[in-house]
Amino acid sequence: MVDVLVLHGPNLNLLGQRETTLYGHTTLNDINASLAILAEKSSLQLESLQSNWEGALIDRIHLARTDGTRFIIINAGALTHTSIGIRDALLAAEKPFIEVHLSNVYARESFRHHSYLADKAVAVISGLGAAGYRAALEYAIAQLNL
Amino acid sequence: MVDVLVLHGPNLNLLGQRETTLYGHTTLNDINASLAILAEKSSLQLESLQSNWEGALIDRIHLARTDGTRFIIINAGALTHTSIGIRDALLAAEKPFIEVHLSNVYARESFRHHSYLADKAVAVISGLGAAGYRAALEYAIAQLNL
Amino acid sequence: MVDVLVLHGPNLNLLGQRETTLYGHTTLNDINASLAILAEKSSLQLESLQSNWEGALIDRIHLARTDGTRFIIINAGALTHTSIGIRDALLAAEKPFIEVHLSNVYARESFRHHSYLADKAVAVISGLGAAGYRAALEYAIAQLNL
Amino acid sequence: MVDVLVLHGPNLNLLGQRETTLYGHTTLNDINASLAILAEKSSLQLESLQSNWEGALIDRIHLARTDGTRFIIINAGALTHTSIGIRDALLAAEKPFIEVHLSNVYARESFRHHSYLADKAVAVISGLGAAGYRAALEYAIAQLNL
Amino acid sequence: MVDVLVLHGPNLNLLGQRETTLYGHTTLNDINASLAILAEKSSLQLESLQSNWEGALIDRIHLARTDGTRFIIINAGALTHTSIGIRDALLAAEKPFIEVHLSNVYARESFRHHSYLADKAVAVISGLGAAGYRAALEYAIAQLNL
Amino acid sequence: MVDVLVLHGPNLNLLGQRETTLYGHTTLNDINASLAILAEKSSLQLESLQSNWEGALIDRIHLARTDGTRFIIINAGALTHTSIGIRDALLAAEKPFIEVHLSNVYARESFRHHSYLADKAVAVISGLGAAGYRAALEYAIAQLNL
Amino acid sequence: MVDVLVLHGPNLNLLGQRETTLYGHTTLNDINASLAILAEKSSLQLESLQSNWEGALIDRIHLARTDGTRFIIINAGALTHTSIGIRDALLAAEKPFIEVHLSNVYARESFRHHSYLADKAVAVISGLGAAGYRAALEYAIAQLNL
Amino acid sequence: MVDVLVLHGPNLNLLGQRETTLYGHTTLNDINASLAILAEKSSLQLESLQSNWEGALIDRIHLARTDGTRFIIINAGALTHTSIGIRDALLAAEKPFIEVHLSNVYARESFRHHSYLADKAVAVISGLGAAGYRAALEYAIAQLNL
Amino acid sequence: MVDVLVLHGPNLNLLGQRETTLYGHTTLNDINASLAILAEKSSLQLESLQSNWEGALIDRIHLARTDGTRFIIINAGALTHTSIGIRDALLAAEKPFIEVHLSNVYARESFRHHSYLADKAVAVISGLGAAGYRAALEYAIAQLNL
Amino acid sequence: MVDVLVLHGPNLNLLGQRETTLYGHTTLNDINASLAILAEKSSLQLESLQSNWEGALIDRIHLARTDGTRFIIINAGALTHTSIGIRDALLAAEKPFIEVHLSNVYARESFRHHSYLADKAVAVISGLGAAGYRAALEYAIAQLNL
Amino acid sequence: MVDVLVLHGPNLNLLGQRETTLYGHTTLNDINASLAILAEKSSLQLESLQSNWEGALIDRIHLARTDGTRFIIINAGALTHTSIGIRDALLAAEKPFIEVHLSNVYARESFRHHSYLADKAVAVISGLGAAGYRAALEYAIAQLNL
Amino acid sequence: MVDVLVLHGPNLNLLGQRETTLYGHTTLNDINASLAILAEKSSLQLESLQSNWEGALIDRIHLARTDGTRFIIINAGALTHTSIGIRDALLAAEKPFIEVHLSNVYARESFRHHSYLADKAVAVISGLGAAGYRAALEYAIAQLNL
Repeated sequence: MVDVLVLHGPNLNLLGQRETTLYGHTTLNDINASLAILAEKSSLQLESLQSNWEGALIDRIHLARTDGTRFIIINAGALTHTSIGIRDALLAAEKPFIEVHLSNVYARESFRHHSYLADKAVAVISGLGAAGYRAALEYAIAQLNL
Repeated sequence: MVDVLVLHGPNLNLLGQRETTLYGHTTLNDINASLAILAEKSSLQLESLQSNWEGALIDRIHLARTDGTRFIIINAGALTHTSIGIRDALLAAEKPFIEVHLSNVYARESFRHHSYLADKAVAVISGLGAAGYRAALEYAIAQLNL
Repeated sequence: MVDVLVLHGPNLNLLGQRETTLYGHTTLNDINASLAILAEKSSLQLESLQSNWEGALIDRIHLARTDGTRFIIINAGALTHTSIGIRDALLAAEKPFIEVHLSNVYARESFRHHSYLADKAVAVISGLGAAGYRAALEYAIAQLNL
Repeated sequence: MVDVLVLHGPNLNLLGQRETTLYGHTTLNDINASLAILAEKSSLQLESLQSNWEGALIDRIHLARTDGTRFIIINAGALTHTSIGIRDALLAAEKPFIEVHLSNVYARESFRHHSYLADKAVAVISGLGAAGYRAALEYAIAQLNL
Repeated sequence: MVDVLVLHGPNLNLLGQRETTLYGHTTLNDINASLAILAEKSSLQLESLQSNWEGALIDRIHLARTDGTRFIIINAGALTHTSIGIRDALLAAEKPFIEVHLSNVYARESFRHHSYLADKAVAVISGLGAAGYRAALEYAIAQLNL
Repeated sequence: MVDVLVLHGPNLNLLGQRETTLYGHTTLNDINASLAILAEKSSLQLESLQSNWEGALIDRIHLARTDGTRFIIINAGALTHTSIGIRDALLAAEKPFIEVHLSNVYARESFRHHSYLADKAVAVISGLGAAGYRAALEYAIAQLNL
Repeated sequence: MVDVLVLHGPNLNLLGQRETTLYGHTTLNDINASLAILAEKSSLQLESLQSNWEGALIDRIHLARTDGTRFIIINAGALTHTSIGIRDALLAAEKPFIEVHLSNVYARESFRHHSYLADKAVAVISGLGAAGYRAALEYAIAQLNL
Repeated sequence: MVDVLVLHGPNLNLLGQRETTLYGHTTLNDINASLAILAEKSSLQLESLQSNWEGALIDRIHLARTDGTRFIIINAGALTHTSIGIRDALLAAEKPFIEVHLSNVYARESFRHHSYLADKAVAVISGLGAAGYRAALEYAIAQLNL
Repeated sequence: MVDVLVLHGPNLNLLGQRETTLYGHTTLNDINASLAILAEKSSLQLESLQSNWEGALIDRIHLARTDGTRFIIINAGALTHTSIGIRDALLAAEKPFIEVHLSNVYARESFRHHSYLADKAVAVISGLGAAGYRAALEYAIAQLNL
Repeated sequence: MVDVLVLHGPNLNLLGQRETTLYGHTTLNDINASLAILAEKSSLQLESLQSNWEGALIDRIHLARTDGTRFIIINAGALTHTSIGIRDALLAAEKPFIEVHLSNVYARESFRHHSYLADKAVAVISGLGAAGYRAALEYAIAQLNL
Repeated sequence: MVDVLVLHGPNLNLLGQRETTLYGHTTLNDINASLAILAEKSSLQLESLQSNWEGALIDRIHLARTDGTRFIIINAGALTHTSIGIRDALLAAEKPFIEVHLSNVYARESFRHHSYLADKAVAVISGLGAAGYRAALEYAIAQLNL
Repeated sequence: MVDVLVLHGPNLNLLGQRETTLYGHTTLNDINASLAILAEKSSLQLESLQSNWEGALIDRIHLARTDGTRFIIINAGALTHTSIGIRDALLAAEKPFIEVHLSNVYARESFRHHSYLADKAVAVISGLGAAGYRAALEYAIAQLNL
């Protein structure tokens, strides 16, 4: 039983290990752990998945249709800008979702300024680092507790 | 031994379960079954595969080069608009293929109006629902019986 | 009294006579005849019209508003890509219609990839040759018999 | 002898009959009649023509060169956006003209935002419904009476 | 208490003084006066404001939400093409409005062909000179008297 | 029996009557007559047609398939830039053709710089006035006499 | 003495009054108050300003250079998409800033997808409603307390 | 009584204080003073105005129509790239003007490469720093003394 | 003393030697000779120059200002599409000129569809082969004899 | 322990089997073998991987961060033009890499002219066939031996 | 020994002779002479070169690397908009340079609005006529005397 | 007698002298010498030419048609991106050629990403430095020895 599903796309497994001047030393485990604590305080179940494989992410989103997931937080990484398949999976899942980016994508290459997910998202948070995930989760908790 | 290969891309496994006002209640199994019957009448072998993974679809198309496949019917879903890899696989397979879409893609988002497959296809059928697959198969049967 | 109206645009009168390597030897009469047989089996009235005059096609579509027409199948030929007037006439007629092309327009000049009709059509069939008309009519019959 | 020529392009003959939620119940006859009364008050001759045939409109504009026409009011409908021929005819006629649209074309599809006539028109009126024709005629009358 | 609000944007205060070969000798006062008479005949209150300051126009439109304004006529001048703020203010005001231009903007520089207001306007009148305001007001009066 | 077919598109019937500073005083009859003389010298049959109706031009081109026409000279006027139908008719006719324009279209509005016929033409002549038709005919005669 | 400056652009004064189905019933005062409480808990001075006047916003940002401001949170509203002046003022102020939007701008008109501020911002938050401001302030507090 | 009007747009009040590695330590007062001396030598009256408010700049340009101004030197800063209102004011003022930029705008962001003023200016000087204003003034003096 | 100057741009020296299936066996000498004969009949002086060097062509055009040249015929070859310098030289020479291309440039790569010369030319002839030069010279002779 | 990693993207497994007129009869095994010999001569470890799955390629690149890889040679095939994920993985790996294509991609469809990898590569080699891999490896060996 | 190099591109040799209404009667010799006087006053060596040949200009710029040149003033004429070779030469020369245009290029054809030199120049001066060269030289003198 | 012709375009004469951090200390002579040795080993004649003059390069390519040249290696430098004349010369020469760039042009300004030669080249090598020429020559030798 999952309430909130957190999805991390390609290359995010390297967080805290690569390009640390850009992304800092926080690892994906650190982020997932801090989110888990936050969720637990609100008695919500949270599950995290990272994959470099588009198909794995789509499969997991499909599962969310029937495993009780009520909200999705997704940092699709590079797939944000190229995957219509993830867009379609999220639409099919019919769950509200927030798009998160660790760095400010608008300060990077122009091909990162367009997202195939953003127009269907509840919100987009870009550049807050790990705090962006927490802000998304807090928003989700507030919504789910209404 | 396969005569006609039918490929379904990402998210089509959810057919009949999601967005039923848009896609109706027909499932992918229903479609595959009705195609199998049609093929059998013409004594043709038909095989269907659905996958959310681009690599799996490419692998399967490669196999078609040597398993006797004579015609491919493909609804690549979201990959229609983003996968040059599937295009290249189809070109390498050197089999005639028809591109099928359940909904009318020209009435949807503009990024669905371009296909990486269409200019190499025998034909494109968009918006006929499950009947689109049958029209494609009937065309293939007529061609194969020449 | 007409149930299904089939419209053919500019230059289609030459079918079977010109560029036969591209279009084959089937004439427009052949196509119309085969459609008539199909319609008759379902006890539907079918009428076909070909014109090189945009105005004549618009006038005929207007007539469809009051002559009982329940479905339109249209191959607007070159006008597909330039005639907002036919689009407006079809919208005014308020009848479901399917857009048909004999050849695969996506494999031809880029100016043939855009259609002023497609986003308002039920479906688009391109490249199935004369079989495209039959697939459209079968779909129409299925719909009308619901 | 004609002072003011009013031209209506493709599909406008259906006014008041089609899409009445969008265009209302006023017919083209109603519009023409109300314009005729307005013209008569100013002792001007007014003639109206509707055609779905681009050639017929061009022919009529040509006639305006020698039948005394002093002002043209034109709602070219869908041809507004595609007909360089009507533009050329109006330029050849060398009469001032006002472009009228019943609905607000800027609130519709983007291909209706460009006009081949507008940069050569005295004025463009879009969205005032039948009142747009009257405003155009009043302006013409004021000009002709100078 | 205001029924109809007439707004004039940047540089329109110079009307009748500058570029008189293009705009004629009518001043903004002349226009406002003629509109006031027209309004009075229909027992409507009309108020006019000209400003070269975008903020002043936005503030005035906000006021229109609560001062009884039922219709807005706006010639935003240069701001037509650059101000999303005025667009947003008009949307927030939730009053029907007509966009007016003295000259025919489609016959001028291409950056004047796009308006941030037009797709939300009831109508657009361009090139009728002062008569454009009157046509707009007459339309407004007809609507308000329904 | 026709050897060379000369086609004139919309508005060219006004030649010599309108915009004489731009086009001079030569009429279409003058042009046709001078071409007829030139053809006669080479014992060729020449026929000219002008129409403001796109459909009429398409019909005439169709006829050229079977009336012995060996070469077409066409000034499609405004249709040059918008008619895919005439392009298709010329392709179906399978006759060599030269595209002629009286004025230099490259010195006019940018929408006149693109032609739907030019890439399929033998040659394009623009700006030579009536002499352009004669240059085209001389070229045709030279070719036909090979 | 100000630690954190919160700026609200055009039309945000109407928050909670206009388009409440889109923006909800929270007013700008509510938002400012909740931010003030959050700031006070961290012993930071916070000041808010709303203006419909670009010049007023630029002037206030200039002031931030010398009044002790250490962080700016800005929702420039419509000016986000049109004001290079505010961009330049923020660059001149040399303070870190976060760009906030109440609604998800990527789900709205395409002209709202580009921001003149985003590539220079620390972060962009779009669609979290009032919670977006709080997330920005929490991030600022965390940074300032380092 | 003013002979030459010097206008400085948004953010130029900070000159010499901000980004000094980019713009140097010269202040706007320094520039204005050096221009005043230059003007005085030629017995010309010079007035300078800086404003962050577009409306203030437009109002001042309007005044120039009647206060004797014979030449305008304008560095509109960020408004160069976004303000059609200032363009229109300059056109209405009917005074020759030179556009000046301290830095070389062509070496900066691409949105600074287009100016709404440049095609109507006598000249454009970009990148000469304070010397650019002096070169403009010297040119103006030479013209006015003719 | 030169009356008509004929200029041939880069690579035209190879005419008749390279790509003869495309260009035929006529050499540049053949063309120049046939033009010289034509000129002599009309008692005109004709001079031809071919160069692969842009500078040489510009220098020669400059000379035409003072050597009596009354008409220029130019096939600038590849420079047609890239040389603003030749355009400027032709404008400075202030002589009427005709642009000639041996092959039909509109049937070749898209970068050959734009010419920096065409909008300033009297006429453009493309695809008539060597006959194109003769048609241009005949036109020039007719003009010069007026 | 790997010194040089050679990656082959989608469809390259078919090399030597498909479209042999285009690609020749060399197989991927042939290429890998010849590279291994070349590496061995320089006492370098070389590993090759082909996959039709983007995720598999990304995973392998990640591994390169810690398995001693000092240089990467990559022919990403169709993914070159669509995968930002592979770009990001290569950036995260922080290894110099050369992009190789067997055929000359600039002579093929326009969508193959853009690469998501090229601007981050040391070099791009396109069209040398199997020799392109060898040239890349020789360059790598020269670099690694510095 | 040269301190300041002044380069004039194609067609500038005709200055004062051609299009005098546009460029005036000042010749290139006049300009060079007035610059020489200015340079002499500051005890600087100045050399001028005009050429219609891109190669000659590149060669001269190369020479500037070793002949003591400390500053370049260049009016590349038409080559400004087309020559990457001159850009590269200037970059290789590693000398500061100012780009000068006699006329205001932003008031001319749109292809003159882009420069391949401007983003690497110290400054761009356009429209000051001969005074533009002097302003550039004065700036250079001030810089060199620092 | 020449077997392989090596052409270097504008500014490459400065190699090893300018921007050495970007291009290294290898001079053009070094490159030519190493290529000559390589050619000699295969008993091939190699000739190198560098020129800053487009015309000189075109002339040399023409010569290659008849001097025995069997392969061309060309680094056209800046002319790669602007010279259709060199493209045409290479096409006329009808020799296979390889395009070489010392630096990786895809990592530089966007106007260097397009080449007028690449689609006609056998191969393109970009970023391998001097080794790029050697790889090209080795490929040529392998081809010529077939």
